This record gives sequence, C-alpha cells and structure tokens, in this order.
Amino acid sequence: MDNRTAVTVIGLGSMGAALAEAFVKAGHPTTVWNRTASKAAPLVDMGAVHAEAVGDAVAAGSLVVTCLTTFDDTRAALAPAEPLLTGRTLVTLNSGSPAGARSMATWALGHGARFLAGAVKNVPSAVGAEDTLLYYGGDKGAFDEFASTLRVLGGDTVFLGDEPDLAALYEMAVGGTLLPALVGFFQGAAALQARGLTAASMVRFSVKWFEMINSVLPVFAQEIDAGDYTEPASSVNLFVAGSAHDEELAREAGLDMEWHKPFHELLRRAVEAGHGDHSISAVTEVLKQPRVRSAQPRS
Amino acid sequence: MDNRTAVTVIGLGSMGAALAEAFVKAGHPTTVWNRTASKAAPLVDMGAVHAEAVGDAVAAGSLVVTCLTTFDDTRAALAPAEPLLTGRTLVTLNSGSPAGARSMATWALGHGARFLAGAVKNVPSAVGAEDTLLYYGGDKGAFDEFASTLRVLGGDTVFLGDEPDLAALYEMAVGGTLLPALVGFFQGAAALQARGLTAASMVRFSVKWFEMINSVLPVFAQEIDAGDYTEPASSVNLFVAGSAHDEELAREAGLDMEWHKPFHELLRRAVEAGHGDHSISAVTEVLKQPRVRSAQPRS
Repeated sequence: MDNRTAVTVIGLGSMGAALAEAFVKAGHPTTVWNRTASKAAPLVDMGAVHAEAVGDAVAAGSLVVTCLTTFDDTRAALAPAEPLLTGRTLVTLNSGSPAGARSMATWALGHGARFLAGAVKNVPSAVGAEDTLLYYGGDKGAFDEFASTLRVLGGDTVFLGDEPDLAALYEMAVGGTLLPALVGFFQGAAALQARGLTAASMVRFSVKWFEMINSVLPVFAQEIDAGDYTEPASSVNLFVAGSAHDEELAREAGLDMEWHKPFHELLRRAVEAGHGDHSISAVTEVLKQPRVRSAQPRS
Repeated sequence: MDNRTAVTVIGLGSMGAALAEAFVKAGHPTTVWNRTASKAAPLVDMGAVHAEAVGDAVAAGSLVVTCLTTFDDTRAALAPAEPLLTGRTLVTLNSGSPAGARSMATWALGHGARFLAGAVKNVPSAVGAEDTLLYYGGDKGAFDEFASTLRVLGGDTVFLGDEPDLAALYEMAVGGTLLPALVGFFQGAAALQARGLTAASMVRFSVKWFEMINSVLPVFAQEIDAGDYTEPASSVNLFVAGSAHDEELAREAGLDMEWHKPFHELLRRAVEAGHGDHSISAVTEVLKQPRVRSAQPRS
C-alpha cells in the first residue's frame, strides 16, 4: 500500500514537466493536466495519470502544484475546478509580482484552499537535485504537512514566512541580477568575437568571476543592513574610473553600449550624494531615491 | 643561497600590497616603491626592502610588477626609471583598455623591456590562493621564464597569448558583468529593506542564483559561437514576460528602476529582429548592431 501524497501538476511546460517527473520518480501518485494534452504523453509513459479535465486533475491530488506562466493564467486554468479546491493545498510555482501573489492567495483562500506561493530558483534540469533551491511563503501548516513531498522537487526547500508574497518578493530581489549579468556576458562574448576569439574561451573566467562576486555579497549585505559604507573594499570612485574604459571598448569592438549609461548615471549620483569614497554598495541608497524627473526639456 | 627571482612591486594600494606580501611570504627578495612611502612600512616589517627612488626599485628586480590605477599612471611613475628598464621584464596589473595595453607595450619595448600585461580576477585578500586567477598576454618567453614566480600571486595563472592587450580584452569581456550584477543585487536589497527584511537574508539565495547562472554560461557560449539560437532553454519572450513585473515592484518598493529601461529596449529589439522565440543569448546579436541614432529630437 502506497501512502505517499497524491499530487497533481497543472501546466506541463519544461519546468512543469520536470516537476511532474520528479514526483513520479519519487513514487507519488501523480496526475497531470495541460491545456495542450499531448505534452502529458511522456509523463504518462513514466507512470503519471493524465486527466482530460482540469477538475478531474484537481480532484485527484491533495497537493495541487501549478506551473503556468502567470497568476492570471493559473486562475484561468483552474476556473472550471474552483468548487473542487476546498480542503486541498494549492502551490503555485510561477513568476509574478508580490501583488500578484497576494491576489492569488485571496482567490485560493476564497475557494477554501490552503495556499503556498513558491519559486524554483533553477533550471528544469536541476529539479529534484539535492541542492536545488525552492522557497515558499504562505500557509505554514500546509508547508509543514507537505514539506517532505515538496522536498522531492529540490533538497534545499525553504519556508520564508506566512506572507504569501514572500517567494515573489525574494524571486524579484534575487532574480534581478539575471538579465543584467547575462547582458554583460553577451557583450563580453561579442567583444571577443570581434577579435576572432570564442565566447567559449571566456566561460571559465566568467565562472570564477561570479564566484568572486559571490564571495563579496555577504560584505555588501552587511554594509547595506548597517547603512555604513565607509570601509569600502571597492569604492564608487573605483567603478567610476573603470567605466571610463567602456567607451574605448565600444569603439574598438563596434558594440552597442548604450545600456551602460544608466549605470554611469547611478555612479554619478552616488558621487554627487557624497559616496565617492564609500563602498559601491552605497548605490543602494541611490536606488532608494527615485529621481524626480524635471518638466523642463534637457538642454 | 637564495636564487629565487628578485621582484620589484611598484604601487602599494590594497592590491599592490597584497601582491608584494605574497612575494615576500614566498621567499622572493622583494623591493617595493610607492608614491606615498608610508604604505611600504608594513611590507618592510615583513621583510621587503623599500626603495626611496623608483629607479632604485626597478634596478633591484629582474621582474618588475606594477599595480597602479591606469597605464598613464604607470608610465608616469616609471618615467624616472626608463633607462633602467632594459633587459628587465615589466608586468602591469592594472585596469585599462586593450588600446591602453597596446600603447603600454610599445612604450615598454621602446625602453628595452620585455612586457606582459596581466589582470588579477579577484579581490586583494585572494592573492596567493591556489585557485586565484591571473591571466597575462604579451611576451611568451618572459612568461615562461617567470611563470613559477607569477604563480606565487595565484595558483591559476594563465597565458592568454602573445598579444599584449589580451588580458585587458578578457578583463573587460569578463568584468562587464560586475556592475550590472551588483546593481541588481543592491536593488534586491533595497526591495527587501522596504519590507523590513534584511539584505543578509537574500545572500544565500543570491549565491545559489549566481551558481545557476554559472551552470548555463557554457550553453550560452555555445549558442553564441555557433550563431544558433533556435533551441532556447530560456527564450527572449520569457524575459519580456518577466520584465513586465518590474514596474509593479518599483511601485511597491518605491525604487528607482530607470536603469531597467535599456534592458527592456534590448529585449524589444531582439524580438523585432525575430529572436522572440530564440534563446536569450541572441541579445548578443543586438549588441553587435549599434543603433543608429536619429538626428531628430525625440517627440
């Protein structure tokens, strides 16, 4: 007799399919649903049950995990199953804003479900690995009850607190580095290609560079939490000096470096606010003070 | 009898001092010089020799390592010692553009020195560690002769090739992720603080996030080198969808997110160029095509 939690996974994009696969492999009775039913086939081959109707899918699981693009998509997909949510635990694993997560929580609670909003901080292929991070905010009782089941999706499973928007908040706080960091990497790749060198030749160096960045994050966090930027490892002025080279590289490699300008502007404003000799983390204070835009056209 | 290479270190900022300390600790006869002489005192206590005149410093080492802010600063500092450079190997470890490194090489060769331009890809406290990365471009014979000495500064010592601007090129290619990634982190910290949470609470998540980014860089590099973006792990459209949440977070946390706009613009141009369903690494192609600015004022 198998008494593992019966799980339902709604939404079988690459991440949703990876979640469902992890549950199946861990021996959980797993029911799947997707708008395009054909995506369920590989999971059915592994042992999942495919429900034609979303209501049947929801009815089959005491834990219902959704992995759709947005909270709006999630509500739309679940609409036919609303009366069946009572007494179940709904876990959303999609991108969205904190406000979106709060609305979703209100909706779920209104239908009698317990609610957790989570985020997978990794790529689909990492789902199920021991050190893969997922975090959740919302109903603590529901988290405690299903923690061992949720841990199937990643060994590093964290409860952030009972506010349902915490995962969305941390997702945006943490994930905000992704596109800027990648664009930096792409620009580097383009600069190397302009010299007949490969992007692959920089990967090993970039990996070390991000490891270095990781090593200094605790120091920056401490400075920011203390609001004390006066003992810099790297000062704002050091970055100002470095940014002067940008234009030269742009000219040499023929690249579009327009996207650097706002960073130069943030540095300029940090210097203007007296942070020139302070830690680069003082830029946090500049970000907290949105610039009032002048009604005057620039001269 | 000690036959370890006699080394000179010019410029004793935090990085230069760390370099000198590593040489002293490894038993190299080490002579140091700095414009502000007092910075030499701690190194003298460790066993370094302090030269009052830069010429005496240069004369004392067969390997002369400079760690000043710019190439211009380096030439200015070395000016009184120009006649003494003949037959020595000069290694610069400063920030600078590829063009700056090429000028520096011409200058050094003109004074009869062999030349290597290098970069330390880490913080001063990491100097001397087994996995600390330094890379060099320039005179291969000089690198081979002094490789074991240079390895004292970091176990991961790499010769990039015989062009003297390669370290500067890779430094900019690799280092271009730093400020954008940090500003992303600072923004996240500010968003958490606006909710009464600490920056420290996100560090462990951010570290995992950068590890995730590191895990996907080889894939992106391969796509960029092949110029084939048609099998995306993360598409441009996925990032477009994510960027729609930015404004909501900005409103909630009261942050300045003006710096996001150029990223949204890059995504928009990638979509416009037909890359919507392609890998996010296709942004590389957009960066290669600087936008022609209109002569018309914006309406």
